[in-house]
Amino acid sequence: MHGLSDFVFTRMLNEDPVLKTIAILGTLPSPTDNSLVQPAILLIEKTHFAIQTTDSDITQRISDLISTGSNDIYNWWNAILSPGKSNDPDLKMTVIYPATEAHIAKYSHQTRKMITETAEVYRTAVLPWIESQPKSRIQWVENILSGLKEQENVLFRDNDPNTGFIILPDSKWDKRTLSSLYLLAISQRSDVRSLRDLRPEHLPMLKNIRDKVLAMVPEKFPGVASDEIRMFVHYHPSYYHFHVHITYVTAHVPGSTVGQSHLLDTIIDNIENIDREYYSKASLRFALGVNHPIYEIITKSQIAN
Amino acid sequence: MHGLSDFVFTRMLNEDPVLKTIAILGTLPSPTDNSLVQPAILLIEKTHFAIQTTDSDITQRISDLISTGSNDIYNWWNAILSPGKSNDPDLKMTVIYPATEAHIAKYSHQTRKMITETAEVYRTAVLPWIESQPKSRIQWVENILSGLKEQENVLFRDNDPNTGFIILPDSKWDKRTLSSLYLLAISQRSDVRSLRDLRPEHLPMLKNIRDKVLAMVPEKFPGVASDEIRMFVHYHPSYYHFHVHITYVTAHVPGSTVGQSHLLDTIIDNIENIDREYYSKASLRFALGVNHPIYEIITKSQIAN
Repeated sequence: MHGLSDFVFTRMLNEDPVLKTIAILGTLPSPTDNSLVQPAILLIEKTHFAIQTTDSDITQRISDLISTGSNDIYNWWNAILSPGKSNDPDLKMTVIYPATEAHIAKYSHQTRKMITETAEVYRTAVLPWIESQPKSRIQWVENILSGLKEQENVLFRDNDPNTGFIILPDSKWDKRTLSSLYLLAISQRSDVRSLRDLRPEHLPMLKNIRDKVLAMVPEKFPGVASDEIRMFVHYHPSYYHFHVHITYVTAHVPGSTVGQSHLLDTIIDNIENIDREYYSKASLRFALGVNHPIYEIITKSQIAN
Repeated sequence: MHGLSDFVFTRMLNEDPVLKTIAILGTLPSPTDNSLVQPAILLIEKTHFAIQTTDSDITQRISDLISTGSNDIYNWWNAILSPGKSNDPDLKMTVIYPATEAHIAKYSHQTRKMITETAEVYRTAVLPWIESQPKSRIQWVENILSGLKEQENVLFRDNDPNTGFIILPDSKWDKRTLSSLYLLAISQRSDVRSLRDLRPEHLPMLKNIRDKVLAMVPEKFPGVASDEIRMFVHYHPSYYHFHVHITYVTAHVPGSTVGQSHLLDTIIDNIENIDREYYSKASLRFALGVNHPIYEIITKSQIAN
């Protein structure tokens, strides 16, 4: 990779106006053979503002102000910035080169739909699909639990075969910024595939995770209090071995929205105080990408009913 | 307001590195009396990328590339942009001038904590506080329902006194972008203060809202299908008159995170298929600003228990 001056734009793959990110498909010549032109994916993100001080506040970089309106005490403007310095870049970029069809699919816009999984559809159609998945898909989890891989990442380990778990940083966390703290607790038991399997017999495990995380995080990460920790489970999860997401209370984390996520405390309360069989009875509703295999399984089941 | 050249930085009030926004407190001289210097709040947001085409892709504005690492097919860079044009501004800004203490508090960082409201704490401490709120706080809702105000905003009206509701756009929606669609359904009944009051007798109202919204939105907003609509209720809500938030399936909306929000379908399922008294029994967990009156009510109750 020599740079981007030879990048030729093909088309936009995706964008997010809230997060200020775009994914562009283009081409770049090979650095070793200029006649070979291959696909490249460019992921670009506007940077956050540098730390503001009296000497370096952003208003000093404004080269043009364009008034767009005003009402009473409110005044709206657009502004153009003069070029920044290398310690205050405007963009963060990732270039994937050469990019395969799989990379292009991964970074392309995917239509999502709201969908309801009834208890019956789970039992008759979704569970058989989960059980048909090759065990090798979660071999990486077994490797961490058994101590074969990633031991340098493990922050905490409780080896009890029934209630134990390990904690490691989520790969999306920078391991520094406490306000975006993101850890994972992975259960030692491998017989709980998801939320749907949880029964009263698992309450000791769920409470052990809750209580030890609330004690351990403030100890390992001074500055995060136990009432600033949010713990939740995804449904559907990205892999079928029970795990709990642990984030700072206000961290913006993909998938922490209602429907995708279930608070650990709510799960415990539902099983303990509402109904022992809550998760085998409930209709669960969530947004799902239409290319996810479960989308087809559920929509076909509903037509068949 | 003449511009920002006289803006003097005082301190940062708040920032959001995910949304790329900052709130700065400073001072500006009065436009009519230069000797009078008053507080000003500057809200700044990085803009999203302009539409990318072959002729105008963002790579053409890059003036400096700084490589920050690489691994196999992944290459990371920072970049400096050359100045944009007025139709492609770098920043959007709001200036509030003169700003009062109330504005400063509103835009300042507020610590949030995770908190659990048990059924007992709700009954003995939270409900009495809700009942002590003056009726005038929700007079604006009555004004809309009775047809006195905002009739030009009402998109749909069902006047049944038990199951009816009105729909209007949420004030945060731009009324154009379907991917950020945000509507509110406000119940005609004024005896349901929140989620906590919902019982089997309210199922006809909940289902009426669900079914009519699913039919009405795709009709009024072609391009939004019924399975691209997400409906949820906040707990705690910002006002105690039952209402449902309606958004596009992928819209980034504040408060749509787990704990703050409860899907309408999940509420119906909990009451109908799990437990008729679900919402008078459940422990509800959510993040709350420590300055919210309910934060003190709940934490004091728990100490007292």
